[in-house]
Amino acid sequence: MSTQPSAGSDPILRLRDQLRQFAAERDWDQFHSPKNLAAALSVEAAELLEPFQWLSEEQSRTLPPESLEQVTHELADVFLYLIRLADRLEVDLVAAATRKIELNARKYPVDKSRGSAAKYTGL
Amino acid sequence: MSTQPSAGSDPILRLRDQLRQFAAERDWDQFHSPKNLAAALSVEAAELLEPFQWLSEEQSRTLPPESLEQVTHELADVFLYLIRLADRLEVDLVAAATRKIELNARKYPVDKSRGSAAKYTGL
Amino acid sequence: MSTQPSAGSDPILRLRDQLRQFAAERDWDQFHSPKNLAAALSVEAAELLEPFQWLSEEQSRTLPPESLEQVTHELADVFLYLIRLADRLEVDLVAAATRKIELNARKYPVDKSRGSAAKYTGL
Amino acid sequence: MSTQPSAGSDPILRLRDQLRQFAAERDWDQFHSPKNLAAALSVEAAELLEPFQWLSEEQSRTLPPESLEQVTHELADVFLYLIRLADRLEVDLVAAATRKIELNARKYPVDKSRGSAAKYTGL
Repeated sequence: MSTQPSAGSDPILRLRDQLRQFAAERDWDQFHSPKNLAAALSVEAAELLEPFQWLSEEQSRTLPPESLEQVTHELADVFLYLIRLADRLEVDLVAAATRKIELNARKYPVDKSRGSAAKYTGL
Repeated sequence: MSTQPSAGSDPILRLRDQLRQFAAERDWDQFHSPKNLAAALSVEAAELLEPFQWLSEEQSRTLPPESLEQVTHELADVFLYLIRLADRLEVDLVAAATRKIELNARKYPVDKSRGSAAKYTGL
Repeated sequence: MSTQPSAGSDPILRLRDQLRQFAAERDWDQFHSPKNLAAALSVEAAELLEPFQWLSEEQSRTLPPESLEQVTHELADVFLYLIRLADRLEVDLVAAATRKIELNARKYPVDKSRGSAAKYTGL
Repeated sequence: MSTQPSAGSDPILRLRDQLRQFAAERDWDQFHSPKNLAAALSVEAAELLEPFQWLSEEQSRTLPPESLEQVTHELADVFLYLIRLADRLEVDLVAAATRKIELNARKYPVDKSRGSAAKYTGL
């Protein structure tokens, strides 16, 4: 992402730059291989799943405050590792996500997908 | 997030709105309980880890094009589920991530953390 | 596990020995570091979760045959990587699991744990 | 697995029966839908990956004692949830794993697979 414009008001670029500085100051780039970051991201995603695992779907819609606080921290951790991993691979997250939504729209046409759990397999 | 301002130029809010419309058009909100979305996010994070699992760290830094293409799709999937889950829980991802970086800066002071693998446990 | 007795009729030791031979014949021990095997195990566990992610709990109790077939393959994959990882770390899975059940019995006494979702956090 | 013979000396059946009793005594069968158990298994697999995520492969081969102790507990947790999930789905783990090894032997013939990282994608 070295050729990208400076962060300016883009929140993802700002977080990316903060993470770069954070790692550089601590000499932690050596640990941040894409392989390690992908493992860390996966671990954080599981920590995000953990508070939901024994809840009913209904309960998961109305978390108690302390649980929502924990979940918010885990959402942040996943987001930070995602930004960091994308940075190390020089992938533009927003462009990739925008393209993926377009692909999904073609894969799941509205008229064939409405309310169908059977055909439901993705976003 | 219903009280948030319209997406405007914020890329995350724009993606959030596209995902809302995508689910509404297909009547898929019924499947998108936080519990299910957290499981889906975790599954996508593992799919992102999968292409790295047998690579050396060094190999993971220079993926061949077809592998990088696959990884980019998985990064996008993780990002989309993350945005969708945060939306359903009414969590502001950028605010949560910004706060987490501040917490991490206090948890891992520069002078005590420099280059230390032993003490290295997080971003 | 090199000091363990020969597999004989113990099914886990038999599978362990088959996996040892499988890797040796293909010269794959080089890929089977504990780190890599732990990543592979985590990926397989997510593949096992994947067919359940959009199902209701009730639906998950009565899988259609083709789905049960897929799930059975994923259960096998998790089991094989678990045996392989334990072997590389020289951990006796059955002894570890037996000890863990004893620890859990002390952690969750029957009279304090009955039917309580609030206190329910483990096996 | 209700039609299976009594556990006798088979260690997996013995653990299965202990887990059945453990859940029954605490009235926890209600939480043990296959969906929930698959999520819990996935979370435990990530906890098993966690201590390895920043280690080199070489370091992962020689864990310090306290780390090996933690890993042993996580191996046990994965094993217990795997046995419990297989039980709820009435899947015979050993039979499934034995069949999977046979399938893998056909999928990765020795002469075409030797030492090839490029072709290496499984056990």
